[in-house]
This record gives sequence, C-alpha cells and structure tokens, in this order.
Amino acid sequence: MNDIPIRHAQPEDYNPIIIVLDDWFDGRPVSRTLHKLFFIHFRQTSFVVEEDGKLVGFLVGFLSQTFPDEAYIHFVGVHPERRKAGIGRKLYERFFDAARNNGRDTVRCLTSPVNKSSIAFHLRMGFEIEPQETVTDGIPVYRNYDGHGIERVLFVKQLSPRMHDSF
Amino acid sequence: MNDIPIRHAQPEDYNPIIIVLDDWFDGRPVSRTLHKLFFIHFRQTSFVVEEDGKLVGFLVGFLSQTFPDEAYIHFVGVHPERRKAGIGRKLYERFFDAARNNGRDTVRCLTSPVNKSSIAFHLRMGFEIEPQETVTDGIPVYRNYDGHGIERVLFVKQLSPRMHDSF
Repeated sequence: MNDIPIRHAQPEDYNPIIIVLDDWFDGRPVSRTLHKLFFIHFRQTSFVVEEDGKLVGFLVGFLSQTFPDEAYIHFVGVHPERRKAGIGRKLYERFFDAARNNGRDTVRCLTSPVNKSSIAFHLRMGFEIEPQETVTDGIPVYRNYDGHGIERVLFVKQLSPRMHDSF
Repeated sequence: MNDIPIRHAQPEDYNPIIIVLDDWFDGRPVSRTLHKLFFIHFRQTSFVVEEDGKLVGFLVGFLSQTFPDEAYIHFVGVHPERRKAGIGRKLYERFFDAARNNGRDTVRCLTSPVNKSSIAFHLRMGFEIEPQETVTDGIPVYRNYDGHGIERVLFVKQLSPRMHDSF
C-alpha cells in the first residue's frame, strides 16, 4: 500500500472531480457542497491519488484558523471501483502527517449517521465519536447540525507524535 | 457609519443565518453553499453585524493557506431591508484590517456576472476585475469555473498599508 501515488491537490483537479462526484456517492447531490476554493487555497492539506493518469481519490482538509492545535478534514471521495484498496487510509495518513508538520495534534471531521461504512472507517482510523445528548441506533449524533434538521456524527482524533527513524 | 456594531462570527450564528439566507437572496438556494465549518474554524476573519439583537449582515472569509500573502472572502450577506446602509462596507473594511493584521496584502473574491450590484459594490470597494479570455457584456468572466458551466467574475484588491494615528 505504501506505493499508492499521492500528491497535493491543485485547482485543475477540481472540475474532473466535481463532474463525477455525485456518481461516486450513488447519485446524492454532494457536489454542491465541495467548493473549488479548497483546491486553490488549502493545497498543503489537500491530496489526490491518481492511477494510470486517472484521479481515483481525494481528500480536502485545512488547518483550523480558530484553533491552532486543530486540523479538519472537510471532504473525502474514492472512486467506487477502487474502494477497499487502502486509498482512503493513505489519504488520511498523509493528511495526519501534514497536520503534525504544522503543529496540529487534533483532527476533526464529521459524517452522516446513515453512512455506516464511513463511521466504521473512521473508527478503524483511530477517531472517536464525540459524545452528544442524542444517541440514535447506538451512535451519538449532533442534532440539527446545519439548521435544516440534519444530524451529524462528529469525530475527533488525537495525533500521536510522529516516530522518527533516529533522534 | 463608524458605530455599526460588528463582532467575530461564532458557531451559534450559523443556524439563524442559514434558515433565512435563501430569502435574503430572492429565493436562490444559496444556503447549500455556506458551510458551518467557516463559523467554527475561520472565526478570526469572519464577522457579523447585529442591530437590536438581530443579525442583519455577515461576512465569511479566511487566510489562504496556499498563498501566504492572500486572504479570501467566501460569502457575504446583508438583510434585504438593511442594504445601502454601509453594513457591507463595514464588513469588508473589518476583513481588510484582519487580513493586514495577519500579513496579507491581497484580497480575492468572486461573484456571478448577473449580479450587477455586487460587481458595482466590489469596484467601489477598490477591487479590480481579473482579466479573462472571455468578456461578456463588457465584464471579463472566468468560464466554467465550477465544472458545471457556471461563469464567475474574479476580483482582486491590493491592500494599502494601514495608516496609523501616530508613528
């Protein structure tokens, strides 16, 4: 898995992603929620994976400007035919490295409570679910996260200090 | 105009804004494009104006993490009944100050070419329209900005060094 090719995102990556993104999410209109600005202004914490010249995965994140210890993962997508191949893990680990390199020890992100595979993935990646007043189907959920009644599962992960080969 | 009360945005501002935002924009579904994350992680460059305890305007912006000299204004809204009262100007000027205080000398933002009042406002605020290959109705437009064929007018403003009362 270590040879999965990964590089920083660039503005030119945006349009090829956005035109396939809803298909990657079973037709859900998620592409409206992913702005080009992340591919322009948050390149140091955003990454893409290409295979045979074709973009098959990406992660968009940033360093919190309110909380100097935190980094945030905003959006992650992997081509449906290339899932379970370690691409998501590779993207997250690369982001964790970027966060550590910028002095961050906490990573946050969120997902929908109906997205059970996303919840399982985040738990495997070492995230914890933040406690909430409401628990639905055993999962703590933040109610009315967005003003339109939508529930969200909020994750947090403490980054361990990086292990160096020598010190 | 100097006594327009302005403060940093906070997460609790998000829901009251988002439920009225489409109405503020003549019913256009703009609220889908404004994420809560800006009210959490970019508070130092995001501002709200309240009058009589009611939120009547806001600006959401951030410091570019790719370009260390740049700041970006992502979204601005003013209550329809409170326009032409200097609230937009106050929000922009407060953002310019925050950008300068963080070592930024360039501010960027964009708007839709159909939004003539927004274009006029940005020109009054000292922005220039970035040149593009395509000019529509006399306005340079960036074609297919978002992968779905949408055109955008891109603005840039160089901040002048701040004048101090004494030095």
